[in-house]
Parts: sequence; structure tokens; C-alpha cells
Amino acid sequence: MKCSVYIATSADGYIATNEGAVDWLHSAGNSDADMGNNPDMGFSAFMAAVDCMVMGRKCMETIASMNLTPEQWPYGDTHIVVLSNTVKEPPENLMGKVEMFSGDITDLVKGLANKGFKHAYIDGGSTITSFLNLKLINEMTITRAPVLLGSGIPLFGKLDNPIKLVNSKAIAFANDFVQVKYDVKYP
Amino acid sequence: MKCSVYIATSADGYIATNEGAVDWLHSAGNSDADMGNNPDMGFSAFMAAVDCMVMGRKCMETIASMNLTPEQWPYGDTHIVVLSNTVKEPPENLMGKVEMFSGDITDLVKGLANKGFKHAYIDGGSTITSFLNLKLINEMTITRAPVLLGSGIPLFGKLDNPIKLVNSKAIAFANDFVQVKYDVKYP
Repeated sequence: MKCSVYIATSADGYIATNEGAVDWLHSAGNSDADMGNNPDMGFSAFMAAVDCMVMGRKCMETIASMNLTPEQWPYGDTHIVVLSNTVKEPPENLMGKVEMFSGDITDLVKGLANKGFKHAYIDGGSTITSFLNLKLINEMTITRAPVLLGSGIPLFGKLDNPIKLVNSKAIAFANDFVQVKYDVKYP
Repeated sequence: MKCSVYIATSADGYIATNEGAVDWLHSAGNSDADMGNNPDMGFSAFMAAVDCMVMGRKCMETIASMNLTPEQWPYGDTHIVVLSNTVKEPPENLMGKVEMFSGDITDLVKGLANKGFKHAYIDGGSTITSFLNLKLINEMTITRAPVLLGSGIPLFGKLDNPIKLVNSKAIAFANDFVQVKYDVKYP
């Protein structure tokens, strides 16, 4: 199964403040810019290409805290698995929308593949780092907001070994966000 | 005086390993790629645009450890100031090439401007962070090598406040390095 990252960070690589806040992301950049035919910087095209999603507990809790209406829900009917060894049930407003999973990530990925899933969207800093260390991430799209936070929760955690990236692509959008794409090449 | 950053990092934002090593930088990317008429990714054009340089002690020591020949020296006859409150003399192989400075950065920048310097190249993680906190950096060029190190010395340290970036530009080179440019906008 193909595993892809699609995530936003600050220009200095943080996915949230130390308190977990992401409001800086929504206020970053030039919101008056003409984004042409790509107002969401490729997110809907990316969502159309995946058929399942794996995220960490913190990522789920951030989404739950947004109290999204059905119209605001960004993941369509994509099958979502949330990793947690401690939380057994999702928050009330995500009931029926996500499935909790506790255990081995490699087993999870095999299980999803056995169920017919082809392409997973991997989300959340700790989850992405775990997948990278298991050599499970195939490609990454990182959209960097034009702001230096100076501190926060970094996208990438400690890796067991350096990881080589290939097939780099980059675009600066009119709103001053910069998006880079890489394929991941393991030894 | 205009102050510019031009620095290389890993894709996860480190300028060196925890031990200060930068060999990963020189081995990163596709060294067989055809870089066309820009083999140095804009470095010589950048050097031609600056007339002085300010770097931190660690940055100086990294350069000293390379034992560069006159042919390898990348900074031409650019006036170089090294910040250190502890080291009073440069290493022997940098004698005559750099001037040590101890004291207030704002005074240094005023002094350089008074001497007629117009455009400073600011180098080294701690130095860049200090200049950002003093609202002295005007533009940044960050060249990200296609490798995730997973740990190391980050380019950006703790900032007093978030800093907004504007006029983003991005290019992915044939060797898979990605270069981004920003102007810095202070409140």
C-alpha cells in the first residue's frame, strides 16, 4: 500500500505551537492573493487520490476541537484510522467517522492492504515519524506557511537513520505558501 | 544596511549534525544531475551582491576545520566579521581573513553601515536567530538538501515573536535540492 504525507508546517518546520494551536496557519500568508484554479493548494486533488487515512491521537483531538460541520469535514467518506494505545473511543463529535487502532503499525498497514485499500494519507507528526522509521512513507507533500514560529511541535521527530528524498518538486503560491513534494528513497 | 541570509539545511531544517558535521550536505542529492548554467544554485551571484559578512564563532570554526586552499575559499575578499564574546583571535588558518567582534549586534551593523558597507551576508544558526530577533534580517535564501537528518542543530532558534515572510519564491533544482527565498516583514 502506498503511504503519502500531506501536511502544513511553518517555514521553520512546526506543525503546531507548543500548546497544539494551529490558528497561525489559517492567518498566515496573503489571503487576498489570487490563487487561480487551485485555491486549496492541491488538497482536494490529494484527497481524491487516497482511499484511507491514518492519523495520531493528537491529530484527531485537534480535528475534534474544530467541531467541524458536515459541510466543513475535509475528508469526505475516506476511511480513517486513529492510532492510540491509551484512548479506546473517539471524541463524541467524531463517533462513526474514525476507527481507533492500538497495536503494531506494520500490521495495521498490512490489514488495510488486505481489505483492499491502496493509498493511505498519513497525518500527524508522531505518526509520520513512526511511519518513516518503518520505511513505510512513499511520498511527502509539505506546504510551508510563510511564517517563522520560533518554537512549537516539529513535523519531523527523531529518525533512526537519515532518509534520502528524491524527485523534488517545489512551487511558491500567490499567497506566499511554499509547497514541496518528494519521493522517499530507503536504502 | 541590508542583511541577507543564504544558508543550506536538511529537508527537516538542520544546518549540521549534533556534532557539527556537514558532510551529509556535500553527499546529498543527485550529484550527476545536469545543473545547467547554475551549478552553485546561485551562491556566486549572491556573493557578488554582498560586500560584507557576519557569522558566528561556530560557523567560523566549521569553515576553519575545512582547511580551504585559496582556490577553495568561497568568500572572495568580502569583509568578514565573526561574533564571539569568548574567542578573541581567529584560528591560525583564518588569520587576516576574518575580524573578531565582541559586543552589541546593533552597534556592529551601524558601524559597518558607517564604514560604507551596504549589504551583509549573515551566516550561522545562532547569528541568524539573533539578527531575526533584532529585526535586522531583510531577506532569506534557504537551500534544502534532499535528506531528512532526524536530529541536529536547527537553523532557526527560539524567536521572541512569530515573524511573517513575504514574496516567496521556490525552485527545485535538478539535483533535488529545493531553494526558497523570502523577504522578511516585521510588524
